[in-house]
Amino acid sequence: MSLLVVGSIAFDAVRSPFGERDRMLGGSAVHFSLAASFFCDVRVAGPVGDDFGDDEYAVLADRGVNTDDIERVPGGETFFWRGHYEHDLNTAHTDDTQLGVFGDFEPKLSQPSRDAETLFLANIQPDLQRQVREQCTGARLVGLDSMNLWIDTARESLVRTIGGVDLVFLNDAEVRMLTEQPNLLQAARAVMDMGPRAVVAKQGEYGAALFTRDAFFALPAYPLETINDPTGAGDSFAGGFLGYLASEGEGAADDEGVLRRAMTYGSTMASFNVEDFGTERVRRLRREEIDERFAQFKHITSLEVVPTA
Amino acid sequence: MSLLVVGSIAFDAVRSPFGERDRMLGGSAVHFSLAASFFCDVRVAGPVGDDFGDDEYAVLADRGVNTDDIERVPGGETFFWRGHYEHDLNTAHTDDTQLGVFGDFEPKLSQPSRDAETLFLANIQPDLQRQVREQCTGARLVGLDSMNLWIDTARESLVRTIGGVDLVFLNDAEVRMLTEQPNLLQAARAVMDMGPRAVVAKQGEYGAALFTRDAFFALPAYPLETINDPTGAGDSFAGGFLGYLASEGEGAADDEGVLRRAMTYGSTMASFNVEDFGTERVRRLRREEIDERFAQFKHITSLEVVPTA
Repeated sequence: MSLLVVGSIAFDAVRSPFGERDRMLGGSAVHFSLAASFFCDVRVAGPVGDDFGDDEYAVLADRGVNTDDIERVPGGETFFWRGHYEHDLNTAHTDDTQLGVFGDFEPKLSQPSRDAETLFLANIQPDLQRQVREQCTGARLVGLDSMNLWIDTARESLVRTIGGVDLVFLNDAEVRMLTEQPNLLQAARAVMDMGPRAVVAKQGEYGAALFTRDAFFALPAYPLETINDPTGAGDSFAGGFLGYLASEGEGAADDEGVLRRAMTYGSTMASFNVEDFGTERVRRLRREEIDERFAQFKHITSLEVVPTA
Repeated sequence: MSLLVVGSIAFDAVRSPFGERDRMLGGSAVHFSLAASFFCDVRVAGPVGDDFGDDEYAVLADRGVNTDDIERVPGGETFFWRGHYEHDLNTAHTDDTQLGVFGDFEPKLSQPSRDAETLFLANIQPDLQRQVREQCTGARLVGLDSMNLWIDTARESLVRTIGGVDLVFLNDAEVRMLTEQPNLLQAARAVMDMGPRAVVAKQGEYGAALFTRDAFFALPAYPLETINDPTGAGDSFAGGFLGYLASEGEGAADDEGVLRRAMTYGSTMASFNVEDFGTERVRRLRREEIDERFAQFKHITSLEVVPTA
């Protein structure tokens, strides 16, 4: 099945205690699509400016990501984000944001994108997410990410948009903020009451938790000695998660076992993403490394000791 | 095997968004010994004042905890702590601390306590912890808890004390603070370099992680709809953990499978502790409830869906 992601395509400038990059490819749709590309056919949609060149297209094309719906705006500038991380790496501090072509973005999707069976609405303004959702008449499984900004400034629109999706990916603070419910279990249920069948609460260095009507599952983050740049971890998680779900075909999201493996592929992809700056680690990633780390998750989470193969 | 805990025995006043108690039995040694009492013979040592009466002794005696080494100081007052929690319940805010008899505490243990095979040094001044360790010549497995206060004010003594124990229980911020190492994996290794064979990083609502030389294991917290009072969760965790280890006999701490079950019993006991104020939930707890929740942990952590029995 094919998977479409609509979201930001960006240039990022990032400084962490372990290095910095002045200008590198980033954006939620980029991190998502690179991660998902290991599992299924991926299409990416979003606006870029004249400054988005062959090198950037090549990063996506090298991973087989279809870029037909990247809208290149003549005379425009690509979305730019500058941020930094303190020693604990848990919080991204934004130093500069330049919307560029994203300021006037109006999604106009091609027919093949509208036909994609799986859709990810990366973190953009919820009205735009809903426009995309309405165009994608072929989508049978829809995931959504958002952020505190939209909960603050466009809550009503966000709740409407959430009403039309199957899976919500938010960090745990956002799940609580959206529902004004401090207890995470009750907060996740309140999100499901808005429409979705499942909520993934992302918990950064602590991993992620999956809430469905009938079950709860939690997975720690993979323990890493080297974490250089957490930017894009959440989108890589969603990419691994939805990419794997898409590869399992129709009905996959109803299967608790598939959902748990999706959580594990999501965590696996996020763990690689943070090992280096921007897309650098995922670009040189091999499928065998994914399989190996996926298997490691069994060792670090099993209540019984799992014999080494 | 018998298990000795030395630490604070206290009266607590606690206010949370879900209620308050003016004066109730508390203290690290109390929470620890009640939790451990479900697994093995427990002895508790620490000072109390005249105000510590039959009702308080009865709480411990009802769970079979040996109180011979509770030192009742004539004319003294029992340690008192007053604190409150905000809506997120993650941080205890201290409003008042009165050391009382704890200010002049000098551990003088009875022979049966010195002979205990398993010892838990609850969070008290590290010089005192070391005095206890030296008296306990029969101890073959020693666990220790501490806090940011001692890392700040008595770091050298704490590092010496840690050098003489097997297991360290700290929250993850304290592990980082003690070692001045922001990466948790590297920080835990640095603690093991001080002497211990294992480090348990407590992570509050996110669960706990176990670091040994050869393995890593992480367990989420049990998802709860009702959390009234987090006070004592860490000590209940350590009580379940070490109580179970003690019940498994010599060499238990060398067995990764036993350690993982100890983590699960620790998390189980912590999850009950926080459901009600002070010791209220654990006092009315039944062994079957522990076994049931222990089994639930398998359902919420297994990468494969575990069939319901």
